[in-house]
Amino acid sequence: MERTELADRDADDPLAALRDGFELPSGVVYLDGNSLGALQTAVRERVARVVGDEWGRGLIRSWNDAGWVRLPARVAARLAPLVGAAADELVVTDSTSVDLFKALVAARRLRPDRRVILTDDRNFPTDRYVAEGVAALLPDTEVVAVPPEGIAARLGPDVAVLTLTHVDYRSGRMADAAELTAAAHDAGAVTVWDLSHSAGAVPVDLTGWRADLAVGCTYKYLNGGPGAPAYLFAAARHHDALRTPIQGWFGAARPFGFAGAYTPAADARRFAAGTPPVLSLAALDAALAVWEEVDPAAVFRRAQALTDTFVTLVDERLAGLGVEVVSPRDAGVRGAQVSLRHPDADAVMQALIARGVIGDVRPPDLLRFGFAPLYVRSVDVWDAVEALREVLVTRAHEDPAHRLPREVV
Amino acid sequence: MERTELADRDADDPLAALRDGFELPSGVVYLDGNSLGALQTAVRERVARVVGDEWGRGLIRSWNDAGWVRLPARVAARLAPLVGAAADELVVTDSTSVDLFKALVAARRLRPDRRVILTDDRNFPTDRYVAEGVAALLPDTEVVAVPPEGIAARLGPDVAVLTLTHVDYRSGRMADAAELTAAAHDAGAVTVWDLSHSAGAVPVDLTGWRADLAVGCTYKYLNGGPGAPAYLFAAARHHDALRTPIQGWFGAARPFGFAGAYTPAADARRFAAGTPPVLSLAALDAALAVWEEVDPAAVFRRAQALTDTFVTLVDERLAGLGVEVVSPRDAGVRGAQVSLRHPDADAVMQALIARGVIGDVRPPDLLRFGFAPLYVRSVDVWDAVEALREVLVTRAHEDPAHRLPREVV
Repeated sequence: MERTELADRDADDPLAALRDGFELPSGVVYLDGNSLGALQTAVRERVARVVGDEWGRGLIRSWNDAGWVRLPARVAARLAPLVGAAADELVVTDSTSVDLFKALVAARRLRPDRRVILTDDRNFPTDRYVAEGVAALLPDTEVVAVPPEGIAARLGPDVAVLTLTHVDYRSGRMADAAELTAAAHDAGAVTVWDLSHSAGAVPVDLTGWRADLAVGCTYKYLNGGPGAPAYLFAAARHHDALRTPIQGWFGAARPFGFAGAYTPAADARRFAAGTPPVLSLAALDAALAVWEEVDPAAVFRRAQALTDTFVTLVDERLAGLGVEVVSPRDAGVRGAQVSLRHPDADAVMQALIARGVIGDVRPPDLLRFGFAPLYVRSVDVWDAVEALREVLVTRAHEDPAHRLPREVV
Repeated sequence: MERTELADRDADDPLAALRDGFELPSGVVYLDGNSLGALQTAVRERVARVVGDEWGRGLIRSWNDAGWVRLPARVAARLAPLVGAAADELVVTDSTSVDLFKALVAARRLRPDRRVILTDDRNFPTDRYVAEGVAALLPDTEVVAVPPEGIAARLGPDVAVLTLTHVDYRSGRMADAAELTAAAHDAGAVTVWDLSHSAGAVPVDLTGWRADLAVGCTYKYLNGGPGAPAYLFAAARHHDALRTPIQGWFGAARPFGFAGAYTPAADARRFAAGTPPVLSLAALDAALAVWEEVDPAAVFRRAQALTDTFVTLVDERLAGLGVEVVSPRDAGVRGAQVSLRHPDADAVMQALIARGVIGDVRPPDLLRFGFAPLYVRSVDVWDAVEALREVLVTRAHEDPAHRLPREVV
């Protein structure tokens, strides 16, 4: 494969113009959109308007006049098609950790006679921490973590909840959510999916999967900005039975009724709690608008093509240089990221970043590259592999300058 | 009292220049800073930099390079003097409802053998809803709500937690937090204070009160912006024993260690959960900077002077016009708000807003006016009372134009 071939592919790509909406710095190949998605001009402008005009001039009136009070529902409606949900099955609020807590407690309460929250032992740390916290909180509840391949066998009459991340944050491996959900249901369990590394990168069909509950983050492939609010999905068939542990006023049927007794909202909004984070929600609202101009399926195919190209180039250009593809080679079971193993991953990544190629690392030895399909080009894939080749060939990562401690890696 | 007298007072006020940092719209008297604080120019500029430069150009690197990872601790340090806490006793994260949930559960766990969460029956709806949610979640737990004057008598050997709002959202009445905390401790209970209507408006001394836990919101008198993150206080003496129900990665000792087992942070940061809301935290950080330039005690005295003036003018100028002062007349037991009762409160407020005087209402019959001491002037108090006088004298509120339904009142 040659760079010109990839440049031609970009030139012919009907989705290439989407990149123009993003404010990517020059001289940078950004392959960390799976950790923090890039900024769109529309988002920057929207935030400026919300701060200067709506907050500054509108003040409290903007809850009505600028529609702040309807913003969570508006964002939910924009997000719904990307995860195969109805708008009233989604609430956009709080962080992924908090939403996962609410979902796990609510799911456990749907199966009061079963004691196990089942997960896999590769799940993201915060997901495991949150599950352990739920188990410590609720009577007679236990977290059981088994290897991913052992999940189906472990499902049994004691399992209340199966909670898994759809796309693994390290390997990028994508679980068969429909199959695992069916297996959980066959065993009488309820599912809680974490879609943080999925939505905006791969097809997600919560309705088709028959999912029960799910959560996800919006600052990765959905480009909501650092610390953007997360979402919680609750299938309509469960709405009446689901009870959130955090009964806040924005989850009440009438938030401004100031009623003495709590009555939950009829739909997934019952999982809202406090006052919505207006600045972040407005940013997310603007960030999601781009999806209304494209066919999401075409975007997801583009992500597959980008990761396929990366794997091919790693094989072709980095053979014998000490890196190993950890992610599945079959794009059908892979998210929009590819991880490579290298024993000196952190220093290699620092050397890469010094060359303008930004990915990240996951301890102890994974180089992680995300291919956000709205703005990563085919030539970026080439340039990233060539920069990595240069680092590895020149052993640039052995330079002490690339061994600085960092808080976030 | 005459308007010129108040204009002279403003002219002599050493704190008057603080108002210049706020971007208040012309023609508006803003007396709803107790609901949503006003925008400072420094906040608008900071948000623009965080979005355009730090997110847009810095991308993921800004977690280290722009200090995003240290932002929660930085905001906690700025907030600490305003509530009489040490910086490591505060965590700034999530919403007030979510923080209250965490605090109530943690407090209840400090007293496992006691079943009652005691509160007063005038407490803010979301506080009562959250407490009821905690009681429904934890075994053998019950919420008991009594009138404020009955709290001390109800404290007894079954009370695990006393949770109260320091300044009542309707009447503005300020509780004697030191006395009630001492009474709770004498009875063996733990306290959870809600400071939402206090911090930035009245002196708060959590250390002096010997408070155990507390929460509060930052979008009122602290001017953090709509839906700004809340804070949770946990007294240092309790840190080791306190356990959050929501064990997220940002509350772990090493968030980026990706360790298998959860170890909580040593201090109040253990109550953090998910990824920090960077845009909102940066706005709040900038909003709090003003407090480093002033003596907070002088600001709180100014709030008292403003509310005293309002009560005096209501007595002088609105006698016989059908409004009644509901708030305490003694500024020593009053927050920075004054509420007036009028049977047609909502229409009166809409007529006032049409005249550029913005307060809010609380059902069924309260007109609520907040006197945010950083930017409200003495002449604003005069102008607000005169506008209210005009509405009441001309019966402008009977105009059908002022009877439009609104979502947020």
